[in-house]
Amino acid sequence: MSRINRPRGTVDILPGEVEKWQYIEDIARKLCRNFHYQEIRTPIFEHTDLFERGVGDETDIVQKEMYTFSDRGNRSLTLRPEGTAAVVRAYVENKIFADGLTTTKLFYMGPMFRYERAQAGRQRQFVQFGVEALGSDDPAIDAEVIALAMSFYQSLGLKNIRLVLNSLGDAQSRLDYRQALIRHFDPVIESYCLDCQKRLQTNPLRILDCKVDREKPEMKTAPNIQAYYSKEAKIYFETVLQYLDALGVTYTIDQNLVRGLDYYNHTAFEIMLDGEGFGAITTLCGGGRYNLLVEELGGPRTPGIGFALSIERAIMALNAEHIALPIEMILDCYVISMGEAARIKSLKIVSDLRKKGFSCELDYIGRKMKTLFKEAERAQAQFVLILGDNELKRGTIQVKHMATALQKEIHLEQLTQYLQQMR
Amino acid sequence: MSRINRPRGTVDILPGEVEKWQYIEDIARKLCRNFHYQEIRTPIFEHTDLFERGVGDETDIVQKEMYTFSDRGNRSLTLRPEGTAAVVRAYVENKIFADGLTTTKLFYMGPMFRYERAQAGRQRQFVQFGVEALGSDDPAIDAEVIALAMSFYQSLGLKNIRLVLNSLGDAQSRLDYRQALIRHFDPVIESYCLDCQKRLQTNPLRILDCKVDREKPEMKTAPNIQAYYSKEAKIYFETVLQYLDALGVTYTIDQNLVRGLDYYNHTAFEIMLDGEGFGAITTLCGGGRYNLLVEELGGPRTPGIGFALSIERAIMALNAEHIALPIEMILDCYVISMGEAARIKSLKIVSDLRKKGFSCELDYIGRKMKTLFKEAERAQAQFVLILGDNELKRGTIQVKHMATALQKEIHLEQLTQYLQQMR
Repeated sequence: MSRINRPRGTVDILPGEVEKWQYIEDIARKLCRNFHYQEIRTPIFEHTDLFERGVGDETDIVQKEMYTFSDRGNRSLTLRPEGTAAVVRAYVENKIFADGLTTTKLFYMGPMFRYERAQAGRQRQFVQFGVEALGSDDPAIDAEVIALAMSFYQSLGLKNIRLVLNSLGDAQSRLDYRQALIRHFDPVIESYCLDCQKRLQTNPLRILDCKVDREKPEMKTAPNIQAYYSKEAKIYFETVLQYLDALGVTYTIDQNLVRGLDYYNHTAFEIMLDGEGFGAITTLCGGGRYNLLVEELGGPRTPGIGFALSIERAIMALNAEHIALPIEMILDCYVISMGEAARIKSLKIVSDLRKKGFSCELDYIGRKMKTLFKEAERAQAQFVLILGDNELKRGTIQVKHMATALQKEIHLEQLTQYLQQMR
Repeated sequence: MSRINRPRGTVDILPGEVEKWQYIEDIARKLCRNFHYQEIRTPIFEHTDLFERGVGDETDIVQKEMYTFSDRGNRSLTLRPEGTAAVVRAYVENKIFADGLTTTKLFYMGPMFRYERAQAGRQRQFVQFGVEALGSDDPAIDAEVIALAMSFYQSLGLKNIRLVLNSLGDAQSRLDYRQALIRHFDPVIESYCLDCQKRLQTNPLRILDCKVDREKPEMKTAPNIQAYYSKEAKIYFETVLQYLDALGVTYTIDQNLVRGLDYYNHTAFEIMLDGEGFGAITTLCGGGRYNLLVEELGGPRTPGIGFALSIERAIMALNAEHIALPIEMILDCYVISMGEAARIKSLKIVSDLRKKGFSCELDYIGRKMKTLFKEAERAQAQFVLILGDNELKRGTIQVKHMATALQKEIHLEQLTQYLQQMR
């Protein structure tokens, strides 16, 4: 029969590589535990209108990149392209807001889907780790969310990461700034790309993000959002910065860091890899405050802030900095038996050792001793245990400690103890 | 704005419930480590023809239950309804077979999708944990795979689980048996349901599985597969049973346990919950040997065996047996500050404690002390730390040990040490 391949833009994560993922996800979970964020799991697909409303109709994601399909009941479903909309949907639908005295601090980790041109760092299925803190507009939580993201990369050992920050102001600041941008770009918009021409009315902030027109002279002279901050917005941003200073988190302020959607406001941030060898993709993580999103999705007005980061890009960053994660792949025992009676006994020995927490492997393809030892080495076994007819009679087993090549015949009753001593 | 709900047949797993999942998945991962199975992660969707070939054209899954859609490049994709086909696809595509001296032992854990009538125990998105051992037709690995599945339920503390076993024989056994079934049912097939009438030619084994016709007299007098075992198939099955006996795994043999597809052979098994209060659904886990599937999916002839189980049903079984998992949800410190200067200092204290591995929460909504203490209790905080202006001046912090209500003023330099002693 012919072979079938995996879909374009997806990967298989195989043993040898999957341990990196396990390690990184474990770091993320431990950080969330220490920062007191709890896990939430939402479905892989959602009703399409969730993303139209929660990510934004006019975004590239919704316009071009979603996997949308009808189920057998003819409902339009979409594989989630990001995590925030679904977490907020779950927060509203399950009335989590009603339950709490407190701020709800959630994290998620799982696959997301975007139909993108396949290229390095852009897969059609990728894994995001993200957090959302809902219910507080205390600037301290902005600082906490940012510190958590930075801690994640620091825990991995990455050196050249850079935090870039901005404030988008509050609703009034944004409205005023939007008008100023329209006034600024309107006279010259004909010379800009078609996307920018559309953006001028729908979403002029996103013109500043345009990769096609980034070198145009009006980009450099565009009005600055700082000039349009309300007094409250200004104080809010200053407090966030003060808290980050207190935490020793260093940052750069970039006035061009914007998020196009109306429900984003105040703090916006990105974490970049600031180094060679990483190609075109330098943003590792993006986040920000979205005080209007919960309401947009049918809940009571509730402030929120979060970030999302891609595990794939974290791994690319590790590779770019030549960092080897401290991954242990040790097998405790590799058990070889000779003859059918010894075989049956060895199954029982292996089963008992596993119940005591030893990882054990056993020869499942009859082969020569030499080949089996090679296999044990390949599996990085600490011990090779050999059971033949003689050992069977004596109630013993041969134990070879691979690191020292010391081999001893051990009574079965003393086996666990011996292994514990030696490992 | 109106609310948006999650898609029918899906769930949100929220804090308070998600810890069960984390605990169960952790058990599964530890068992796989001890049994030396390594994780593999395949994409959420695959080319549709993978499941048509790997699950079987004429199965209910492929006929009625798949989420199939076209991507923007007009390829037919399907959300995976099960795990085995994709693992075997990855095994073939990545030529894992070429790499090995050894048997390849893999596990997976993740969401699967079937468009089913929504009912208890049947979600449209559910989580499966499964293993696949490829490359060996040693009966010892059949016993190992079964023992691993049983260990999973035993580790959760389930008492009333029952292993049901059968052998489907080898290819020749099945061919002979198939003919016998056709001869047996052909004279009376008109009185059977339409599905069975179709099955008579496509897949007569599945008639034995039919829920509609289960009480028909010919069901009871149907030929028994045992009578059609080849000599090799008989020895194979007896050896598996012998190994299970050696491991102390108890089982029942059920001749009606069949798997409809041609690439399944030899060992087939199910693990059932044998108790009250579990409703119609009693099968927790299903597995078996599939020595022809790798070849069917374009690889070299390679024996394989595996199982899949649903985490949802494991949780239902735990509920049915009233088992509470030993889940710890302890927060180490809840930190309260009074005044802006103390606030800034408290951010730093929290950050330092988190770096030392303490889980910490901090008051993100300004409230009265009494409310904050209530919140700390709700979060099961072991300690409440209070920082006011006086403590700030003295370089100290108030530490209240919640279990004993002991409160002490501690120098900040001694804080970590004190907390470590007291917890």
